This record gives sequence, C-alpha cells and structure tokens, in this order.
Amino acid sequence: MSGAEAFQALTIETLPARLGGIDALTSRIGTNAAQWTVKEVGDGNLNLVFIVTGDKGAVIVKQALPYVRLVGESWPLPLKRSFFEYHALTRQEARAGVGTVPAIFHFDEAQALIVMEYLTPHVILRHALIEGRQLPKIANDLGLFMARTLFRGSDLSMKAKDRKADVGIFADNVELCDITENLVFTDPYYETELNRHTSPQLDSLVAELRADRDLKVEAQKLKHMFAANAETLVHGDLHSGSIMVTHDDTRVIDPEFAFYGPIAFDVGMLMANFWMSYFSQSGHEGAGHEKGGDRESMRQYLLGVIVETWSIFRSEFSRLWHTERNGMLYDRRLFEDRGDPLGSEQALDRFIHDIWVDMLGFAGVEIHRRILGLAHNADFETIADQDLRATCEAKALKFGRHICVNRERIHSFDEIHALAARIEKGIVA
Amino acid sequence: MSGAEAFQALTIETLPARLGGIDALTSRIGTNAAQWTVKEVGDGNLNLVFIVTGDKGAVIVKQALPYVRLVGESWPLPLKRSFFEYHALTRQEARAGVGTVPAIFHFDEAQALIVMEYLTPHVILRHALIEGRQLPKIANDLGLFMARTLFRGSDLSMKAKDRKADVGIFADNVELCDITENLVFTDPYYETELNRHTSPQLDSLVAELRADRDLKVEAQKLKHMFAANAETLVHGDLHSGSIMVTHDDTRVIDPEFAFYGPIAFDVGMLMANFWMSYFSQSGHEGAGHEKGGDRESMRQYLLGVIVETWSIFRSEFSRLWHTERNGMLYDRRLFEDRGDPLGSEQALDRFIHDIWVDMLGFAGVEIHRRILGLAHNADFETIADQDLRATCEAKALKFGRHICVNRERIHSFDEIHALAARIEKGIVA
Repeated sequence: MSGAEAFQALTIETLPARLGGIDALTSRIGTNAAQWTVKEVGDGNLNLVFIVTGDKGAVIVKQALPYVRLVGESWPLPLKRSFFEYHALTRQEARAGVGTVPAIFHFDEAQALIVMEYLTPHVILRHALIEGRQLPKIANDLGLFMARTLFRGSDLSMKAKDRKADVGIFADNVELCDITENLVFTDPYYETELNRHTSPQLDSLVAELRADRDLKVEAQKLKHMFAANAETLVHGDLHSGSIMVTHDDTRVIDPEFAFYGPIAFDVGMLMANFWMSYFSQSGHEGAGHEKGGDRESMRQYLLGVIVETWSIFRSEFSRLWHTERNGMLYDRRLFEDRGDPLGSEQALDRFIHDIWVDMLGFAGVEIHRRILGLAHNADFETIADQDLRATCEAKALKFGRHICVNRERIHSFDEIHALAARIEKGIVA
Repeated sequence: MSGAEAFQALTIETLPARLGGIDALTSRIGTNAAQWTVKEVGDGNLNLVFIVTGDKGAVIVKQALPYVRLVGESWPLPLKRSFFEYHALTRQEARAGVGTVPAIFHFDEAQALIVMEYLTPHVILRHALIEGRQLPKIANDLGLFMARTLFRGSDLSMKAKDRKADVGIFADNVELCDITENLVFTDPYYETELNRHTSPQLDSLVAELRADRDLKVEAQKLKHMFAANAETLVHGDLHSGSIMVTHDDTRVIDPEFAFYGPIAFDVGMLMANFWMSYFSQSGHEGAGHEKGGDRESMRQYLLGVIVETWSIFRSEFSRLWHTERNGMLYDRRLFEDRGDPLGSEQALDRFIHDIWVDMLGFAGVEIHRRILGLAHNADFETIADQDLRATCEAKALKFGRHICVNRERIHSFDEIHALAARIEKGIVA
C-alpha cells in the first residue's frame, strides 16, 4: 500500500489484503495474510483499532477516521492526528526509553495508520483502578516518563532551533487542541448542549460552580497557559485511560493530542485522574478484587501513588537538571561554572514550584470537566446507583475547585490529602 | 526582477536597472529609472537601506544581507528575516492601523527586499531624545500601537486556528530569536567575548551583577517566558531606535525580530529605553535643544511619557477587552453573558497585572544588556566623558536590577519613579 493512495478506512475483511505486503507486519506475524485473524477492538471515541494475529504473533493496527468515531461524520476530525501521534510516540520513546510506549513498526501517513506492538496481557489502568487493583510500578514508571519526556522536550534540553522547528510542526495539531481548549477549559463552566452531569443530584452544585467567578477566571488563565505556553512536547491526554499496565509493566499510549504546551498540563491531568479514582472508590465498595471488603486500602494506595509519582517526577527532573541541562535555559556558565551551584538549585526550586502550582490548577479543571462536561470517566460512570455516583462526584468537584483556586497557597500533598480525607469522610461538605 | 532569481545584494549603481521595472516603485517615484538618485543610508547593524528618489517622489528600499552587516560574513544571518519583517509589518498595519508603520509597496522574498514609504522629516526617536526633544505624541501613539498589536495578535482576539498557523510560520524566525535569547538574557550575565562595558569605571558593579544569584535566576525565567510563551505577535525589538518620529507622527519600523512571544516583552523593552534615556540625560547637559540649560525638564518629560504610555496601553487594552474579546480566551459566555461583568473585570485586572510584573522584568534585563552586552545604546555611547558615562550607566544598572528582581512586589510608577529620582540624585547609590 503506497502512502500516496487516497485514504480508505480499513475493515476486518480488507485489512489482510491491504496490509499483507508490508514487511513490518509480515516479519512479525507471518506472511500468510489470508490466515490472519483480525479483531476490531477500538473502544475509544476517535479511531479504529484492530488486533491482527498471524501464526508468528500479533500486532495492533490503529487507523484514524476523518471524523469522531463516537459521534459520526457530523463531527469531522482531520486524519493528520495520526501523524502527530506517530511523531509523538517516536519522540516519547527516544526521550523516556524503549518500553515506555508501544513499539512502532510502521506508519502510513496517507492512510493515517500506525502499526504497533500488541500489548498483552496489559489492561487499561483506569479499569484496573476501578476493579481495585493496586499496581506497584505505576508511580515510578509514570513519574519517570513525565520527567524524561517533559524535561527532554523543553529548552532545558533541546537545541532551541530544534524545539522551535518542532513547535512549528505540532502547531498544526489545532483541531485536537481545540477539543481540549473547549471541553476542558470552557464548556464545563457554562450551560451548553454537549455538557451533562448526574442530575438532579448535582444540579445545585453545578450551578454554584458555574457562578464561581474565581474558579472561572482561574480556568481561563489556565487555558491561556495551555494554548500559549509552548514549553515542551506534552502527551496532551495523559489520563488513566491512556495508560496500559500489567503488574510489572506500564505503557503510555494514544498521544494524538500531543503539542508543545505546559509541563504542568500532563502532570496535572494524570494527578486529577488518580484523585478521581480516589473519590470514586466508595462507589465500588464490595466489587472487584477486594470483594466484600471496603476500598480504604485502595484509597490509601491511590494517595500513595500520587505522592510517589510526584516524588519520582521531582527527583528525576532534578537529576536531569543537574546532568542534562544542555539547552539554552539556565546556562551552566551563569551558575555551576562560576562556582554558584546554589544559583542553579534556586532556579530548580522555582521551576518545580511553578510546575507544582500549575499542576494543581490543571488537575482541578480536569476533574471538573470529567463530571460536568462531555467526556466522562468510567470511574464514576460505572457507579450504577445515581445517588451514590453523585455523592462521589460532588466530593471530587469540591476538591477540584479547592485545589484549582487555591493553588498558589498550597504547599504539599500532606495538606491536600488531609483535605481529601475530610471531604471523603463528609467532615467537609 | 523575478522572485525566483538568486539573491544578489543591491548597490547604488545596480539598483535603478534592477528595480526600474517594478510598478510599485515607478508609479510612486517616476518611470525614468536612469534619473533616479540612490543613497545608501543604512546605519543599523544588519541591512542595506537605500533612499531612492525620482522626479515624482522617494521610497525606501531595504534589503537584508545573508550576514550581519556590522560584523561581516563571519556572522551569517538568513535572508528570511526579510520575510518575517514583511509579514510583521502587514499584520501590524492591519492591527494598529494605517500610518503606524511605514506603508509597504513591494516585497521580493528571494531578494529579501522590501520597498516602503520614505518617512520624512522623521528622525529616529532615540536621537531626538538624546538631543533633548520632547515629542508630544509618542506616549499616546506607542501606547495605542502596543495595545492594538498585542491584543489583536493574541487568543483574546484571533481565531485559535489562525494564531496557531501564524505561530508555526514565525517559529522559523529562529536565528533572530537566538540573537535576543543570547544577547539579552544570557551573555550580559557572565564574562564572554562579545560583551563590553565602560571600564574600569563599571568593573566592580559589573562583577557584582554577574555574581547576583537572584538577578540571574530571574533573567533566565524571563528567557524561558520569552522563548516559550507564544501569546501574541510581538515586534521583538521595540526600542527607541525602532521608532521614527516627527512632532506630529510616530512610526514603528524594523520588526524583523517579530515572533509569537510574551505581550510584556515589547512593553518592557520600550519602557527600558525610556528609562535609559532618563538616566542618560545628565550626560547630555548643555547639549542639544536645551543648550546651556539642564535636562531636568527632559527627565520629567520622560517619566511622564512612561506613565502615559502605560496608561494609554492599559486603557486601550481594556477597551479592546470589553469590545473585541472575540477569541477563545475569557469567553463572554462565562462572564458578561451570564450577568457577571465583574468576572471579566477580575480577569482583566489579573491579565494586566501579569503584564505589569513581567514588563518590569523584561525592562530590567534590557537595561542591563545595553550597558553590559554587545549592543549598546547611543543614549550612553554618545556621552564622550567616560566617567560621566559610567556614572549614568551605573545608575541605570542598579535601577534595572531593582525592578527586575523586585517586580512582583512593585505596584506603581509612583514608587518606581521615586526610586529613579533618588538614584538619579545619588541619594541611593
């Protein structure tokens, strides 16, 4: 299949004939395409995803569609998101290491198609957390992934010329940024058709948040940073549904929202999803791995994951600051090279402080949009009892508002998690 | 001359033959190219500038060279800066209005050549200020120019898609951004070959500043903002040498450093140049328009210009915020449309506060780099007496350090100008 051919969506039936000649596939799963089995497994909102299995193995074939799959052709979305996903994956692998994202075997730009590693027996992290599974490696793996991709994609590490060229490339990922700009930062905060929430239980709280001046000003300031502050190549959609895990392995997938944006955006979105998992646990009591038991140990696990993820992120970012700060920012000639290592430490503390403050803001709005906006989370959605779900969601909403608006005056997870526990227990309502 | 021809630098001798067939010229200055007079007047560091006069009038022909004119071929600089200058000029004229920049008659990308309005009897603002001339319109004109170009080039006004496309285009102006990144934010703060300062008079103060941890951390944070925060199309070199004036007219020229950067950068650079003029006035006592007199009224004039420029900037930016806020940021549906105009006012105050704080930082480093770095200002350079010059420069350096490092804790020009007066009088040394 030549990259110059007009786009055509794959089907289970046509896939073997269309891809059977591609060495990147046949060398991995076997040359007898007629005997391949093809399964369509896309459960996301946007794309086609096939598992293609031959006698030698299996691969994933992911193909973008020229519209949002969930909605249909009435919501067009350009195929080029596949181009951005491919280029983000290659950069992430180079920056965070082989084995942090799926291995990429083949990319066809015209067909918006990526052939990549079939991850098995991996599951989506979000589903594992809903089931009450405690994955021991995620904090370490994700803390390292974020520190390495975000540091190494910034002017702390890259040559300025290379980063600017990359900014130019990813600036064209405008339609997917537009989705985030609307669905995360604006739509949740006023009444618009695409929004939904658990109603009538949350109606009054939702009205309160939509009248909350401080919150809305903060959300718009964060939107401005999201749109304008092109400091590093971010994943752009780093929630627990974009992570696949086993007990021993963690992979970050689906970076089609990638663009040059704020370091704190990825960190905040990930943290938000852990906090949402925390507040959703009481909706899953007695289900999953801890049948009959409560989810208190899961809640403690999640708070621990948050603390550890940040701690690993911070220490790895600091290590890179000390060892790989070869970009144009905070030039060593101003600090270490003239006998002022504390100047570099002062700058590092300030740099990470800024990430911390903005991380809390991004986390707050991410929590809100998953409960008030268009795209909800399975963490809450799978709680069948509407009253119970609303109780969980209300706690998360209040928590999100607090960390977003007060982000410049919050110093540590100790105070955040003390508050989370008080909200969870209903002491603060 | 076709745009596809290989670049060739114009000379006084070849210009009429090469440009004599271009209607944009002949219609303005006359068709008899053989009788044109051509004068080369480029006094800048980078380009060729010709005044071409025919029987009907005169135009300016500005041509980039593939290297820095001042230094020679050993410092290559791409011709594409002419492309960025042309596109910045057209955008500035569209955003700030006809008559705020020179009218553009012709652009030849391959020859890196712009034919534009010959401004006469305009002079460079910097020279006028050195002479002690008080221009009555500059504060108003420059305040409006900045508010309009900076607001209308941002996501407050533009469609997000259009701004991102433009960010992609201007991200390629990497070599000129590189000059600013090095010469403004880094080189002044350590010993490097390109730097110079009035020596030995300033040696100890320079050593002190280069050992000043807080200052250097601040300068690097500002560099990060400069490089990453693509919030609007900035002029990028908005000092008093990039402004031509008469008593009644103000034109902003030479935007070849244009790129998408922080709103506060243009504002800070302009203010810095007014403050440098302020501290340089005592070096020009008895010279220029106020012969025999002192320059106290000129100093008061300059402080007044600064206050008025900011005031006009702020009020025009606010007017645009209220009337033209049609971009994706601070959507009216969140504020005015739901009966919360004070939400919009809160956001505006915060937005302008952030510009204020960063403006002071950018102003501080701009002052430093003009005294410690490669590119000095005529304001100080034309003070022949080295001791007198160093006295003026030392005051400016100390002032620059103060506003840069303390920028988050400074609230008004009242306190800044009270400090400036105390430094000028030697009360604070």
